[in-house]
Amino acid sequence: MAFDAIETPFGKIDKIVGGAATYAAYAASPFVKPILQISIVGNDFPAEEMDGLTKRGVNLEGVEVVPDKKSFFWSGKYHLDMNTRDTLVTDLNVLADFNPVVPESYQGAEFLMLGNLMPLIQISVINQLKQRPKLIVLDTMNFWMETAMEDLKKALTMVDVLMINDSEARFLSDEFSLVKAAKKILQMGPKYLIIKKGEHGALLFNEDKVFFAPALPLEDVFDPTGAGDTFAGGFIGHLARTKDISFENMKRGIIYGSAMASFCVEKFGTERIISLEQDEVEQRVQEFVDLVQFDITLV
Amino acid sequence: MAFDAIETPFGKIDKIVGGAATYAAYAASPFVKPILQISIVGNDFPAEEMDGLTKRGVNLEGVEVVPDKKSFFWSGKYHLDMNTRDTLVTDLNVLADFNPVVPESYQGAEFLMLGNLMPLIQISVINQLKQRPKLIVLDTMNFWMETAMEDLKKALTMVDVLMINDSEARFLSDEFSLVKAAKKILQMGPKYLIIKKGEHGALLFNEDKVFFAPALPLEDVFDPTGAGDTFAGGFIGHLARTKDISFENMKRGIIYGSAMASFCVEKFGTERIISLEQDEVEQRVQEFVDLVQFDITLV
Repeated sequence: MAFDAIETPFGKIDKIVGGAATYAAYAASPFVKPILQISIVGNDFPAEEMDGLTKRGVNLEGVEVVPDKKSFFWSGKYHLDMNTRDTLVTDLNVLADFNPVVPESYQGAEFLMLGNLMPLIQISVINQLKQRPKLIVLDTMNFWMETAMEDLKKALTMVDVLMINDSEARFLSDEFSLVKAAKKILQMGPKYLIIKKGEHGALLFNEDKVFFAPALPLEDVFDPTGAGDTFAGGFIGHLARTKDISFENMKRGIIYGSAMASFCVEKFGTERIISLEQDEVEQRVQEFVDLVQFDITLV
Repeated sequence: MAFDAIETPFGKIDKIVGGAATYAAYAASPFVKPILQISIVGNDFPAEEMDGLTKRGVNLEGVEVVPDKKSFFWSGKYHLDMNTRDTLVTDLNVLADFNPVVPESYQGAEFLMLGNLMPLIQISVINQLKQRPKLIVLDTMNFWMETAMEDLKKALTMVDVLMINDSEARFLSDEFSLVKAAKKILQMGPKYLIIKKGEHGALLFNEDKVFFAPALPLEDVFDPTGAGDTFAGGFIGHLARTKDISFENMKRGIIYGSAMASFCVEKFGTERIISLEQDEVEQRVQEFVDLVQFDITLV
């Protein structure tokens, strides 16, 4: 949970609420309640944002509020293709000393989404859960591959689903072909690998199976910040609602995650996803069905 | 119909048979016969290649053989991502004076695929057909947009389907968003627009409808030369076989085209597609079905 300042070809916004946990929680909220949030904020995080999350079914008991520090702050600038961004400012602030404590009331959680963060922190959360969740999903990024690869490799042996983007998959596996990359990464621990390709969709790998979900072609991608976290929230939200972790249901989870991400990018920050209702989501999912469905009779 | 010399990260080949018409004809050959070829070659084009095409049902009456000149020659080099290539050599040779004459026996052709070439030549072929084909598909490229835009715009008013890649769609429309680009381009004449995105699949636009077909995730893309022409051949081959030009059937055409292209890139040049049979194609199409199909019950 953090603050972002964002510049895109469509506009600029100075300081809005962001952070992987914020996006993921809002994105899971149309699907499942309660969402047991673990994060850290400073004294500057707005009370009305906390209330907004609570109203969407997000339990904030696991969110540490540090009275004498500021929240994490990130500032970035996107270019026309929206697939690359320049980081302008990263102020760790409270995140520098983040040592999450899982509240007793969170024990027994069946679905665990580990947002992108230092692998040792992700491992710590897993280790604090007395009963292993039914499904653990981990998101990470190049930065941890470059600075904490051994910890990350340990974390990978403890999770079920790894969620990274295409360049991260290539970096982690040292393979250019995503099919070859997936084969190598599935040897590292996770049984499922989701490779996010932004506007080019997402791939799900499991054993020899592969599923592809497109991104929705949009008139404009207004602000891609948080799209990956929103995808993650929609994905695990659907799985948690249905309690079905089969490959077939993960396909649906990816479609729901893609639908949530397609909303996210329509406005700055969390604006478009904070109040989405199930029926809007279902309508958007229908657009995905229409986009890819075809009917071939094979001989 | 031409010669290519190709270098990819996987190997190098000095001089092999290529050319849009060669790829498109081979790619259409599992679907429909006869294929009425219009092209031009020099005295160096191998007789066994002509025989190979004839055996696949390609009528070569419309292929002019110039006794004292050489065939078109292109040489290029691909880099690791295979989406960009450097042209090393372009020898127009016979193509410099190409003035196609449609044989009388070709009159009445119902499906016309105009491969990437000077728009005036594409227009000339259309004008020589006494009866307008049921469907005219046109492929083109940036080069003609830069050097012959007025002719190209005229050609666009005469065709049903335009087939270009994403950067060409952006260039032609002056829009970055492919959805906005499609809207503009569909005002220029064609009722259908196919945007090819290489390894990221293809989009079909018609009025307010859009269909997306992925590319098959492959272990290696060995040589992408001719993949777009192969896609075109599979697409129009399927339409010509079924004689159905509905949007629903064009979706299937795109899947067949994508399947043919996925074979093409597995080997150098036309090697993988010259002898494909219907059953291999159907198996490959099944992989596309498995790749994208999901089953969501919407409330």
